[in-house]
Amino acid sequence: MDRNIYLSNISLDKAIEIYFEKIKDLKMPIEVIKTYEAKGRITAKPIFAKISSPFYNSSAVDGIAVDSKKTFTASEKNPVRLKEGVDYTTVDTGDPIPDECDAVIMVEDLIKVSEDEVEIIKPAIPWQNIRQMGEDIVEGQLILPQSHKIRPVDIGALIAGGVFEVEVYKKPKVAVIPTGTEIVEPGTELKVGDIIEFNSRVFVSLIDEYGGDATRFDIVKDDFEKLVEVVDKASKEFDLILLNAGSSAGREDYSRKVIETLGEVYIHGVAIKPGKPVILGKVNQKPIICIPGFPVSAFFVMENIVKKVVAYLQGYDVKDKRYIQAYLSKRVTSSSKYLEFVRVKLGFIEDKYIAAPIERGAGATMSLVKADGVLEVPEELEGYEKGSKVNINILKSEDEIKNTILCIGSHDVILDIASDLLSKKGKFTLSSAHVGSMGGILALKDRETHFATLHLLDLQSGEYNRPYIKRYIPNRKIALIKFVKRIQGLMVKKGNPLNINSLEDIVKKGARFVNRQKGSGTRILLDYELKKLGINPREIIGYDREDYTHISVAAQVAKNNADCGLGVYSAAMIMGLDFIPVAMEEYDIAIPLEYLELEGIKQFIDVITSKEFKMELDKLGGYDYKDLGKIIIE
Amino acid sequence: MDRNIYLSNISLDKAIEIYFEKIKDLKMPIEVIKTYEAKGRITAKPIFAKISSPFYNSSAVDGIAVDSKKTFTASEKNPVRLKEGVDYTTVDTGDPIPDECDAVIMVEDLIKVSEDEVEIIKPAIPWQNIRQMGEDIVEGQLILPQSHKIRPVDIGALIAGGVFEVEVYKKPKVAVIPTGTEIVEPGTELKVGDIIEFNSRVFVSLIDEYGGDATRFDIVKDDFEKLVEVVDKASKEFDLILLNAGSSAGREDYSRKVIETLGEVYIHGVAIKPGKPVILGKVNQKPIICIPGFPVSAFFVMENIVKKVVAYLQGYDVKDKRYIQAYLSKRVTSSSKYLEFVRVKLGFIEDKYIAAPIERGAGATMSLVKADGVLEVPEELEGYEKGSKVNINILKSEDEIKNTILCIGSHDVILDIASDLLSKKGKFTLSSAHVGSMGGILALKDRETHFATLHLLDLQSGEYNRPYIKRYIPNRKIALIKFVKRIQGLMVKKGNPLNINSLEDIVKKGARFVNRQKGSGTRILLDYELKKLGINPREIIGYDREDYTHISVAAQVAKNNADCGLGVYSAAMIMGLDFIPVAMEEYDIAIPLEYLELEGIKQFIDVITSKEFKMELDKLGGYDYKDLGKIIIE
Repeated sequence: MDRNIYLSNISLDKAIEIYFEKIKDLKMPIEVIKTYEAKGRITAKPIFAKISSPFYNSSAVDGIAVDSKKTFTASEKNPVRLKEGVDYTTVDTGDPIPDECDAVIMVEDLIKVSEDEVEIIKPAIPWQNIRQMGEDIVEGQLILPQSHKIRPVDIGALIAGGVFEVEVYKKPKVAVIPTGTEIVEPGTELKVGDIIEFNSRVFVSLIDEYGGDATRFDIVKDDFEKLVEVVDKASKEFDLILLNAGSSAGREDYSRKVIETLGEVYIHGVAIKPGKPVILGKVNQKPIICIPGFPVSAFFVMENIVKKVVAYLQGYDVKDKRYIQAYLSKRVTSSSKYLEFVRVKLGFIEDKYIAAPIERGAGATMSLVKADGVLEVPEELEGYEKGSKVNINILKSEDEIKNTILCIGSHDVILDIASDLLSKKGKFTLSSAHVGSMGGILALKDRETHFATLHLLDLQSGEYNRPYIKRYIPNRKIALIKFVKRIQGLMVKKGNPLNINSLEDIVKKGARFVNRQKGSGTRILLDYELKKLGINPREIIGYDREDYTHISVAAQVAKNNADCGLGVYSAAMIMGLDFIPVAMEEYDIAIPLEYLELEGIKQFIDVITSKEFKMELDKLGGYDYKDLGKIIIE
Repeated sequence: MDRNIYLSNISLDKAIEIYFEKIKDLKMPIEVIKTYEAKGRITAKPIFAKISSPFYNSSAVDGIAVDSKKTFTASEKNPVRLKEGVDYTTVDTGDPIPDECDAVIMVEDLIKVSEDEVEIIKPAIPWQNIRQMGEDIVEGQLILPQSHKIRPVDIGALIAGGVFEVEVYKKPKVAVIPTGTEIVEPGTELKVGDIIEFNSRVFVSLIDEYGGDATRFDIVKDDFEKLVEVVDKASKEFDLILLNAGSSAGREDYSRKVIETLGEVYIHGVAIKPGKPVILGKVNQKPIICIPGFPVSAFFVMENIVKKVVAYLQGYDVKDKRYIQAYLSKRVTSSSKYLEFVRVKLGFIEDKYIAAPIERGAGATMSLVKADGVLEVPEELEGYEKGSKVNINILKSEDEIKNTILCIGSHDVILDIASDLLSKKGKFTLSSAHVGSMGGILALKDRETHFATLHLLDLQSGEYNRPYIKRYIPNRKIALIKFVKRIQGLMVKKGNPLNINSLEDIVKKGARFVNRQKGSGTRILLDYELKKLGINPREIIGYDREDYTHISVAAQVAKNNADCGLGVYSAAMIMGLDFIPVAMEEYDIAIPLEYLELEGIKQFIDVITSKEFKMELDKLGGYDYKDLGKIIIE
């Protein structure tokens, strides 16, 4: 085992400072390009206006140009009559002002007397309604400073100021090289151990946003000689090299040695999490960065290091992170050894942003898709308490976040369907965090969600949901929107090879079970049914193995990771499993009474009570929706 | 005069609602493209995962895969010894887990005994350190809803979920047609009345940001038949037509008639200011929008209407306006007939955003370049009082705004030079609002600026600046940073054709003067000198004609709009004017004592006391900087 396990743990800011010092002579050369093609480029020099705009006096309105002295006596009692060609010239907005004139009277203030005569009833003030020469831009004036990223409006001002070509830094050409023996091109027939390569595609797309020009290389297998050859060649043709994978301390880690063979490693290991094993170096006078293979680590290295390097090569400093202040819906712990990036969902509840850290069960790439923002826990802190006011780096616009309905609670695929139907309507989106029914109740109690989805069986009364709401949220008026009744049952492989027909059979047949997490309605139901049957949970193999959604439990069974699990009919169908009904349960929505008036909630209720939605329920099967939309207020 | 003066005044929201209803059948067709090329495109269908990711159980760490049952007895006292090939398999992060194993032990927890044997001192918990199949993405799971704009991270999740091609709406092809007899291509030799065409270049660049694919047409002169021909042809090849200019009620307004000839005008006139005369119509089953010619109007029509239309054609709703809350530094009045867009500068002073409406003297295109944000005054309001808390649509990131040093006060070109030198350093930018010395003092008093620049002569003591600070800001500790002494003088045309050698000569020679605005130090100096000489300001032609900067006064003289003006030496030199010294004055910086500790201010002081800056002053001439950087605190 040949592993590079000695990583440094230098702070992000320090790492960047050191690296910039090392690559300070590698900045991009300057090129001259057409102004109208300069969007997103960085000015290499300050840019001054070559001409004034306007370069003559012009009318600011539609009307007539006059010599103001001829109008001084005008009043309602004594209108002044003016003749075209003699006393006035008709002008439109932008027209030049004749030399003898010093004011423009608006068309609305003219009384037409004949084809070429008008009367006015008040005098014109000298220079009224005239855009003076240079009013917009004065020759010699600074239009843009150096190191400025050119925006569309800048292009307008530059051309108006007579600047038709600009000096900018060349766009860095970036080589994106995916490496690893285990990664395969999308479309390849997959065998166990293969990983579909997609990081490079994300990188290319990010580099485009950062203002670079990226080229994706073919996958390079873990062959040291080959890797050296490819990197050497790339470093001669590109301005920045990104090597993906192979920068963790794994066996197949050639990246560091490749760089050391061709050039120099300056930093290996930065105190960020995820993203720690990043390598910063130089090969053939070109910066090279090795990015960890785990997609979430890769993303944070791109956003926090590569983005800055692409900017730095063009003499630019990135300043576009956007933050809002939010309240944390639960405690976040973090190591004081790292700057930690925690993905969060955001909701705007009662005029406050609520940040809900994304549950651990969430997948890697999907958690990035679902994240609304990132909490950056500084190196010196060990985390934040629940309820803390924190700064969140937002990944969406505030408008989007404010138009997001936050649902925290128990998951069902029908939420995805409702989410999709709502998105189609345009304005609102549904964002759901899957923390189980009890998690939803607690979020509702703490005013951290718009609504909760739940299916909680009260063991005493046998009633669903209402007893829990009354017990846990006694001081808030909560309405219950009836959603669906759904069948919960055992999901087993097609053909039911172990012939499991009841909960008892799990133990009898020694089947491998996969459970749901604590606090989930499905788990409470399981425990209730097991108790009724007098089964000790300890007898079930895999009782402690937790998954977070119905569909992921179904997937475990489908791929023979388990023999059975408890879940809803639709999840079994999607995964092509057999289904043994165990109980019918009530899956409802708990929502503070006053939220029923919110526009987004109204649209959401429209969606779930629509024909289209019910048709989708029929397609899935296993749902009874005869009470759907009934609102219970007490 | 043939003018379309009857415009409707429908609200922005209503106009868009009506227009969308009219063009609802003109949405873009769907196309299938490679996932990795889909950044910025809008999903036409919900997208579900085709495979799970990972599609097998894999190791989450580097270590050994084991059957947990074999480890249950391990403790510090009784280590368990495991043999490679028999009891364990070495795995790296991402490696598949062999069928007989159900846990991974991290390499850090292994005690190496021999080449193929290790000992462990605690048991492995079943499923520890294993990334379960489908942990990230489960087959059949919704990855993206319909009507979603695809981001780089989405591309990763899609490919990971086995989705290599996506159904998206085609990008709308947008024809940008500049029209008008007065507009000319950049580079044409200019004659009075010409306007350089640049709006179309701004539009093309904005359309790119909006997710459309724009083509700029050659300028079409105001020839009705020609315009009809060009629009007709464009409407057959493009998905959206933008006609620029000709939509105000001016004489040369053919746009409306062009549309009416080929199709239908739905709306002409929307209650926004600027931007009112916009036209929304349809030609040959393609939406067509006529955009006013004034660049600022054009910009707001693009941002508030065209952007939404480009999105709507792709089934998308724009949600990316970003707002912050700021305090208004002065009263803003607005007509209750319009939704009004007021450009503002933003500063972050003492933990509050301050919004300073951009002065009226500011030019059109430059005011867009300089604007940090836009205050949207709703139709039903007549404005806001000074100090009001308002929402500002920000055009820069909050980071940029927070790294902006706000200077409100008297203008001098040396501020532009300092601004450029500061920008080059990377982090901070200087943003200066030119409102004259008194305006600066008041902003400082109201805590609305980081510092003020001023040159105010106390008529009693003959001393500069300090008496004003003491008088107007008695309750705040203000430091005075000595900046420069500069010569103020009369700027006259090269060769001094009217032979003006003193202020008296302005009256004697009947010269046309151009003055500075009230409250400016230059105006106070003029009034002081006139009083000393016993000259009645009323005798000066143009005494009431106000301009806002030295350089624009100089430009007026250079282009023969005036015969003389009072200003600084450097402005006269830039504009190639002769200069008759009148007085030496002290141009200084007033700054609250505590701000001297701000990092941005320190960098600013470094810049103005640098050799490079002084060299620039020498180049300009007319500045005495021997006291530069001296700080007077009392």
